[in-house]
Amino acid sequence: MKNSFGNSVAITIFGESHGKMIGAILDGLAPGIPVDEDFIVSQMAARRSVASLSTARREDDKVLIVSGVVDGITTGTPITFIIENADTRSGDYESMRSIARPGHADYTAYAKYHGFNDIRGGGHFSGRITAGLVAAGAVALTTLKSLGIEICTHIQSCAGIYDRDFGNLKEDMALLAGRDFAVLDEKKGGKMRAAIEKARSEGDSVGGRLETVITGFPAGVGEPWFDTLEGQLAHMLFSIPAIKGVEFGDGFALADMMGSSANDPFYAENGEIKTATNHNGGILGGISCGTPMLLRCAVKPTPSIYKEQQTVNFKTCENTPLQIRGRHDPAIVHRARVVVDSAVALVLCDALAMRYGTDYLAGGDRK
Amino acid sequence: MKNSFGNSVAITIFGESHGKMIGAILDGLAPGIPVDEDFIVSQMAARRSVASLSTARREDDKVLIVSGVVDGITTGTPITFIIENADTRSGDYESMRSIARPGHADYTAYAKYHGFNDIRGGGHFSGRITAGLVAAGAVALTTLKSLGIEICTHIQSCAGIYDRDFGNLKEDMALLAGRDFAVLDEKKGGKMRAAIEKARSEGDSVGGRLETVITGFPAGVGEPWFDTLEGQLAHMLFSIPAIKGVEFGDGFALADMMGSSANDPFYAENGEIKTATNHNGGILGGISCGTPMLLRCAVKPTPSIYKEQQTVNFKTCENTPLQIRGRHDPAIVHRARVVVDSAVALVLCDALAMRYGTDYLAGGDRK
Amino acid sequence: MKNSFGNSVAITIFGESHGKMIGAILDGLAPGIPVDEDFIVSQMAARRSVASLSTARREDDKVLIVSGVVDGITTGTPITFIIENADTRSGDYESMRSIARPGHADYTAYAKYHGFNDIRGGGHFSGRITAGLVAAGAVALTTLKSLGIEICTHIQSCAGIYDRDFGNLKEDMALLAGRDFAVLDEKKGGKMRAAIEKARSEGDSVGGRLETVITGFPAGVGEPWFDTLEGQLAHMLFSIPAIKGVEFGDGFALADMMGSSANDPFYAENGEIKTATNHNGGILGGISCGTPMLLRCAVKPTPSIYKEQQTVNFKTCENTPLQIRGRHDPAIVHRARVVVDSAVALVLCDALAMRYGTDYLAGGDRK
Amino acid sequence: MKNSFGNSVAITIFGESHGKMIGAILDGLAPGIPVDEDFIVSQMAARRSVASLSTARREDDKVLIVSGVVDGITTGTPITFIIENADTRSGDYESMRSIARPGHADYTAYAKYHGFNDIRGGGHFSGRITAGLVAAGAVALTTLKSLGIEICTHIQSCAGIYDRDFGNLKEDMALLAGRDFAVLDEKKGGKMRAAIEKARSEGDSVGGRLETVITGFPAGVGEPWFDTLEGQLAHMLFSIPAIKGVEFGDGFALADMMGSSANDPFYAENGEIKTATNHNGGILGGISCGTPMLLRCAVKPTPSIYKEQQTVNFKTCENTPLQIRGRHDPAIVHRARVVVDSAVALVLCDALAMRYGTDYLAGGDRK
Repeated sequence: MKNSFGNSVAITIFGESHGKMIGAILDGLAPGIPVDEDFIVSQMAARRSVASLSTARREDDKVLIVSGVVDGITTGTPITFIIENADTRSGDYESMRSIARPGHADYTAYAKYHGFNDIRGGGHFSGRITAGLVAAGAVALTTLKSLGIEICTHIQSCAGIYDRDFGNLKEDMALLAGRDFAVLDEKKGGKMRAAIEKARSEGDSVGGRLETVITGFPAGVGEPWFDTLEGQLAHMLFSIPAIKGVEFGDGFALADMMGSSANDPFYAENGEIKTATNHNGGILGGISCGTPMLLRCAVKPTPSIYKEQQTVNFKTCENTPLQIRGRHDPAIVHRARVVVDSAVALVLCDALAMRYGTDYLAGGDRK
Repeated sequence: MKNSFGNSVAITIFGESHGKMIGAILDGLAPGIPVDEDFIVSQMAARRSVASLSTARREDDKVLIVSGVVDGITTGTPITFIIENADTRSGDYESMRSIARPGHADYTAYAKYHGFNDIRGGGHFSGRITAGLVAAGAVALTTLKSLGIEICTHIQSCAGIYDRDFGNLKEDMALLAGRDFAVLDEKKGGKMRAAIEKARSEGDSVGGRLETVITGFPAGVGEPWFDTLEGQLAHMLFSIPAIKGVEFGDGFALADMMGSSANDPFYAENGEIKTATNHNGGILGGISCGTPMLLRCAVKPTPSIYKEQQTVNFKTCENTPLQIRGRHDPAIVHRARVVVDSAVALVLCDALAMRYGTDYLAGGDRK
Repeated sequence: MKNSFGNSVAITIFGESHGKMIGAILDGLAPGIPVDEDFIVSQMAARRSVASLSTARREDDKVLIVSGVVDGITTGTPITFIIENADTRSGDYESMRSIARPGHADYTAYAKYHGFNDIRGGGHFSGRITAGLVAAGAVALTTLKSLGIEICTHIQSCAGIYDRDFGNLKEDMALLAGRDFAVLDEKKGGKMRAAIEKARSEGDSVGGRLETVITGFPAGVGEPWFDTLEGQLAHMLFSIPAIKGVEFGDGFALADMMGSSANDPFYAENGEIKTATNHNGGILGGISCGTPMLLRCAVKPTPSIYKEQQTVNFKTCENTPLQIRGRHDPAIVHRARVVVDSAVALVLCDALAMRYGTDYLAGGDRK
Repeated sequence: MKNSFGNSVAITIFGESHGKMIGAILDGLAPGIPVDEDFIVSQMAARRSVASLSTARREDDKVLIVSGVVDGITTGTPITFIIENADTRSGDYESMRSIARPGHADYTAYAKYHGFNDIRGGGHFSGRITAGLVAAGAVALTTLKSLGIEICTHIQSCAGIYDRDFGNLKEDMALLAGRDFAVLDEKKGGKMRAAIEKARSEGDSVGGRLETVITGFPAGVGEPWFDTLEGQLAHMLFSIPAIKGVEFGDGFALADMMGSSANDPFYAENGEIKTATNHNGGILGGISCGTPMLLRCAVKPTPSIYKEQQTVNFKTCENTPLQIRGRHDPAIVHRARVVVDSAVALVLCDALAMRYGTDYLAGGDRK
């Protein structure tokens, strides 16, 4: 299946950028979990993010929950999130029906859907489709939080400008919670914003890296050989438009290290097993270690740029210059952050339910 | 499911390092495909690889096909590959039953399997388990080759020493086919080998990067939202022990680029649509572009090193120094290359069968 | 996953009887297939069925397609069907929150959902939830019809009164298409209706058997060992509330036959292979034979009856008499018929797409 | 996937009747479960069953466990069961390469596998392939037994002769445990055997019904909408060759009952909720009731009969008479019984692990 993901807790996603509605179904979540609608609202806002930096398209992104929740509590049956599309200006796209925007899915979608796919606003390939994921992910995030599991992502880099590394996790996670442009070092954040503005003014775009830390996740979760935590997380994360790389712990940097530096020494403290370093990202053999987990995503620069580009008309197979119009973000890395948090939360809910049973997510002591 | 992967063409993997047999089942491959047993033998040899650099364990790795093939031709029913374990020296491991080797799955496996897992030689977490994947992957590779699809991996880096980039793909793929230490620039290969030897002599280990190119793969394959080609490939690739990062095209480097550089301009040539550059790795929107696909894996340094390390006894929760004994590779990146090729081939066979039907892999024009 | 079914063409279902909306997502259907909205309307009407015989609840069942269709043609992305619930009288149910209606899912749902499930109108267990399946199934049915595959179900029996057997399939299928109470022999149909009315007047209910024939389905489809056509069809069919038995061909009657009678002799006619009889229901070894397929479902009598029943309060574990109120059907077999057609169509679309690729359902000659 | 089944506890099956080996992989079973090899041996013997009634083929069916078990205890990793084929007389089949045996999968397999499938002894379609299922099922059965869950099947009918119904379940299950021809009423058993012998002497065959009871299974297990217990059980059961009908509780007989008779009244006794009757087979809404579960399978008469039959050569499309030779059972219903028990056990293990987590099957109190 394509638009469903998960074994025990599963998400199904639907909609097109300029269709009537977009949304998601979250299936398999335990009954009895409170749904925090305010948190959903705030996550939707975080996804839209930082007005001055982002697309001119204005959507309320009002999420309507039409099933699976009664009196604010999950019923255990599918939770359906619906978001109506309002502010669509489809005229912008029609003239480009057979023109492949470089870096976009136009041509590959044509090869797959034979031209029947909805091209308005990118259709099913639009970043807007992540709104359903974020709505469902908000419920997953609060579910995990009630179990003591927290997920937090910062913009590790944007336009080549790097935020500082995570230090004291508890403090840093609190700090990021209060920021709408999620950097640890606000000076660096200022430089990133300036770089985004500069890209916008040049009709260009920038990318970045997102670094995610997960705390409180129990040891012993993950299903090797094939359903490793890394594999499941990466599978989901690569669904997010623009993500082109996923790494755990030191990831690619590990390739240049010696084993004696890359191995994380274990030590015991107050009956708990910890690691002195976290080069392996809290996952060994595809199974969680009980220590903080760390992963990183590469977000490519937004492919929609205003500079003229060379491309083809894929129906006539003729070369053509392209001048993109419409409203587009010069960067999405700061907006993708909440999508990554959501994606990670959904995968972890599924992994926990597979390991400990469906009721576990509602507190675990019910059986 | 954990030890099965794939929707239409699926692999199931089994066995422990020091158990009676290891192996794999390849299910769903079309009937009528010739099985090249010599190629299986050569792939198994490539996985064992370069004697002087690798573990002292000597296994024949003789693959017995016990079902699914009659007279050298696939039947369409499950193909079972069996490899007997012969040269096992289990005594090496028993003393370490509760000692967590840093960088290894010992502790996480304990957290998951409560101490019942087979710890001899790493059990189900041993790199040896990749032998079944390689056997099945060999059949997948020849199947793809007969459709004009070729997969080729080189050691992009080892111990921080970088091979040259791919140039003319056809020539470079031919060149790598003849080399047992898969580098394009043999001078760099010599330096890598020296670095591996140095690590061995120091009781340490090194890692590296594998870069894989896929040619001849048709446009329009991949199943967004969730079963993107990237997601499916990454899911599988993270199953390979020691892989901690996966990226497509320029991957993490894309994060630092401008959109105007990261977008691959399309052009038409002789009725074919191509891209002038390959920053996106031949995949857009999770769907293949018909141009060469490019991905990269980070392989961490082998966690088994002879230097003394700090760790814990996870049953008693006591700190303890650890001196690993036994026979271990100072590097596996050169051996992992054939595992990556196999993993990629299995995923691509599955993606093609989902897209074009089960018979497609046998030539496609049969229906 | 629970509320999703299918490998290549998959349905996800959501909603509760008295929630805001119910519906379904049909994922994986090929792009380029015309969606016949009139047929959806007529199928929804057929599901509500024969006013005089059925529940007093009046729903328009207006189906809104909010994604996956542009200008009446499938896009290849998820098709979302939404039906608003309007005429709900939830007050009827509140007093029964902990009373297990015999034959219903009240107690088993309590054991699973711990009392958090939406009990109004049966919640997610209501027959009303089949409306989403019927909407999606209508698209599947027209898709199959355009490939020459037709599915037709009659009421083989109701209240112990048996319709005549299928004779000339083409004629019988045409005949049933025009009837809203789907019997071949209208005299028998009259007796069935009378029996239903009698049951209603007595505060009781009746069940029946549905017999389904499928013509035009190609030979060679089905995925043994486990994904036999029978297994996949039965898996789906048992999801329909009240179905307690599924059989293929002569089914249970085969158990009493001799092999010499049960085997269907093959013969060749005009280059086509046919069978002289159809005791095996057109499926052998789990794979379609190319001959008409035949299956039968047992529909139990509606569990909601007005006669007093003995039951328990499952929270207090006390015995209690029960007098059901509200509006309930004395029979659903005639309404379940369109649900069965829909369920069968969805499974067959999936099986065909797995076998021949995703484009096959749009005509097959596109690749 | 085709030859794998299950979400958390999954079985993969492989092999052909006359290939080198057949077997199965049982994946996902909790670590720490004792494996009773004697019980496996006795189940394998029960599958071969009652020498005088069955095929002349003599197989030891010695099961070799090559992974997943150490010192008689499950490790939590895939358990691989291997059975070598020894007594194969392939010459019997070669002359029939293109002749469709009525009631067999020869022609449908040809339509699917294009003639590449192994036809010797029925290949992957042989009843012999159930041996792997029985080996894996034996482990599932002992696992369930240690949790207080028992599965017991009797021959409800054979050749139209009916055994008595289940009475006191505990006594009847004990009684059947001691019988190799599993009937409750041995007089009826004698008549069944005589009917089987008569069929043999006439070159014909007979079928029957298997009735299975499951006790001790907890309430609240099953995953509607689509993964109902009935749907999952039926999906698996229809994989067993010759099964053409599956029903739960009174199944098809329910279709003729009034709701007032079909509903099972609940009552409370000593704090437990029970039902006074069992017309619904202990499953409501697809979820277990905590009361005994009851299901029935229709087993068609063995299609291999010695009487001359009419059929076709499917390569030449010519009609031809057929005289089957070789060694074949005049009945398999008594042998299929242990296959049904195994299939049911595997599905129930999976359902429990999905509901309560992977450790539950090892005792449940470990977390």
